[in-house]
Amino acid sequence: MERIQLSHGGGGEESGKLIRELFYRYFSNDILLAAEDAALLHTGGKIAFTTDSFTVSPIFFRGGDIGKIAIAGTVNDLSMMGAKPLYLSSSFIIEEGFEFEKLEKIVASMAEELGKCGAKIVCGDTKVVPKGTADGIYINTSGIGEIVREGISAATIEEDDAIIVSGDVGRHGAAILMEREGLGISGDLRSDCAVLWGVVESLLAADIPIHAMRDATRGGLAAVLNEWAVQSGVCLEVEEQRIPLSTEVQGICELFGFEPYDFANEGTFIIALPAEYADRALEAMRSHEAGQKAAVIGKATHYKDGKVILRSAYGSSRYLDLPKGELLPRIC
Amino acid sequence: MERIQLSHGGGGEESGKLIRELFYRYFSNDILLAAEDAALLHTGGKIAFTTDSFTVSPIFFRGGDIGKIAIAGTVNDLSMMGAKPLYLSSSFIIEEGFEFEKLEKIVASMAEELGKCGAKIVCGDTKVVPKGTADGIYINTSGIGEIVREGISAATIEEDDAIIVSGDVGRHGAAILMEREGLGISGDLRSDCAVLWGVVESLLAADIPIHAMRDATRGGLAAVLNEWAVQSGVCLEVEEQRIPLSTEVQGICELFGFEPYDFANEGTFIIALPAEYADRALEAMRSHEAGQKAAVIGKATHYKDGKVILRSAYGSSRYLDLPKGELLPRIC
Repeated sequence: MERIQLSHGGGGEESGKLIRELFYRYFSNDILLAAEDAALLHTGGKIAFTTDSFTVSPIFFRGGDIGKIAIAGTVNDLSMMGAKPLYLSSSFIIEEGFEFEKLEKIVASMAEELGKCGAKIVCGDTKVVPKGTADGIYINTSGIGEIVREGISAATIEEDDAIIVSGDVGRHGAAILMEREGLGISGDLRSDCAVLWGVVESLLAADIPIHAMRDATRGGLAAVLNEWAVQSGVCLEVEEQRIPLSTEVQGICELFGFEPYDFANEGTFIIALPAEYADRALEAMRSHEAGQKAAVIGKATHYKDGKVILRSAYGSSRYLDLPKGELLPRIC
Repeated sequence: MERIQLSHGGGGEESGKLIRELFYRYFSNDILLAAEDAALLHTGGKIAFTTDSFTVSPIFFRGGDIGKIAIAGTVNDLSMMGAKPLYLSSSFIIEEGFEFEKLEKIVASMAEELGKCGAKIVCGDTKVVPKGTADGIYINTSGIGEIVREGISAATIEEDDAIIVSGDVGRHGAAILMEREGLGISGDLRSDCAVLWGVVESLLAADIPIHAMRDATRGGLAAVLNEWAVQSGVCLEVEEQRIPLSTEVQGICELFGFEPYDFANEGTFIIALPAEYADRALEAMRSHEAGQKAAVIGKATHYKDGKVILRSAYGSSRYLDLPKGELLPRIC
């Protein structure tokens, strides 16, 4: 079995071979091939710029792998800012001895996700570290997108805004936990990991005035809602029975005592927008696979500014707090 | 002693505290503070984009640390493309238990280098991985620069072009090797690690027509010259006694049997330009600390196209080949 050696990251002949025979083969485009120390790009001048390092464990999981998540995560961060994802960098830190076959599978998975949104990898880097100083592979992707819609910001949420979630929550966190604990839970639990640009593009094309938009990654729904409540000085009141949640995720959470709203998602996002546009937004979102379960889950009020209130079907209510403690490490 | 915990990378309350109290304090600027999922930037529309992950070991070495190199490396990649470095991302992968004090020293070092070139960190990410799955800290920086001079490319080197090196070669590689082997070599051996934008800016401002420009990082002078010879289909003939080399680097290379021209630099670059502009280029470079030892080392010919020839003071000559094998791992 072919394995990655230290020399594959040394900048000499073997590095060049890996770049040409693997990365160029899957990521090939004119800009990448012409790049020297940096890629030369022409943009509209108003751009969004983001970065993320991915350390997910296990590397392969139901519904995705570290390569898929490395593309989806960065593409989604750009999309959430109203920016069309155009150019990505990819930088690999690979542990000596990592199987070449796995690396190729990851790279192929990245290429597939890129194909779904039209973004290109235009520059990259490869480091190989000695055995025992990484855990298989870590990937950084940074991304540049062209601003299609300006002014989307958590600070613009207003009283009576509707809060929409694009799908059932907590699937990525639950899928990772299941893999890690070796649970053979039956049913269809898979990570929600997906590129969201398609859904976002439809929302923007429909001229829906979005106040805030955020993908609910680390810290899940709870983290996004709490950050929004603080940033815009409103109270977000959410009805528990309206939040889409699969029975599998609910089951895993009950088993381990986790809060499903703290669980990471990798293809699920939240919107705040004027309530009168909620139906049109749901319609635009539901035409995409990633938005089929989109639902209005609550609204912005001034009941307790800076707080998130979760109301149960039985009339009780509680604060939904910002997640604390270790959560689940290496989720992305 | 305060140490980094897994929760510092979990996306919850502790992550937020680390970002606010460390990263924002050192990297503070309006764009970073306003960034949500991505930073919003206004650029001239013609930009350069680059990425690098840094895994250097040891983390602290004579002449620099992983933070300094993470800024210099990316700023230099942009500079080499004729782009003014403007915006950087910084993404940390930190091993659980890493000393907070060391992290602060690294972040302070990054801020200092940024100050030397005016670039800003505008977005970032922090992941903490369990003990034993990294070696202290790895840093990715990606960068965006605005193109000041177009058309700098290895493909444009012509016969009779002069080849200039900006300083004495091999110091970074030799300094790392010395630290790693615990050699107490006396004298002044320090890494050349430095931000090169100042020198490059002077060259561009002096309207010197640069054909190719490249910093001689992994693989050193030998890698750059060989890549250029192949890309532009010329022969590069270099005179050994003209290549600036410190006695310390020469000594270490003789001791270990290394080729000094294979050794990495982190603040030394090579230019190819029409010979009649060589004196003006040297003048512009020597006005900066990083360019004080700048020297013409050879020229482009058609003696053996695609090859690099090294001529000794005694009239003998040999091929200077592309570095092969493991070189020195984790040099940057």
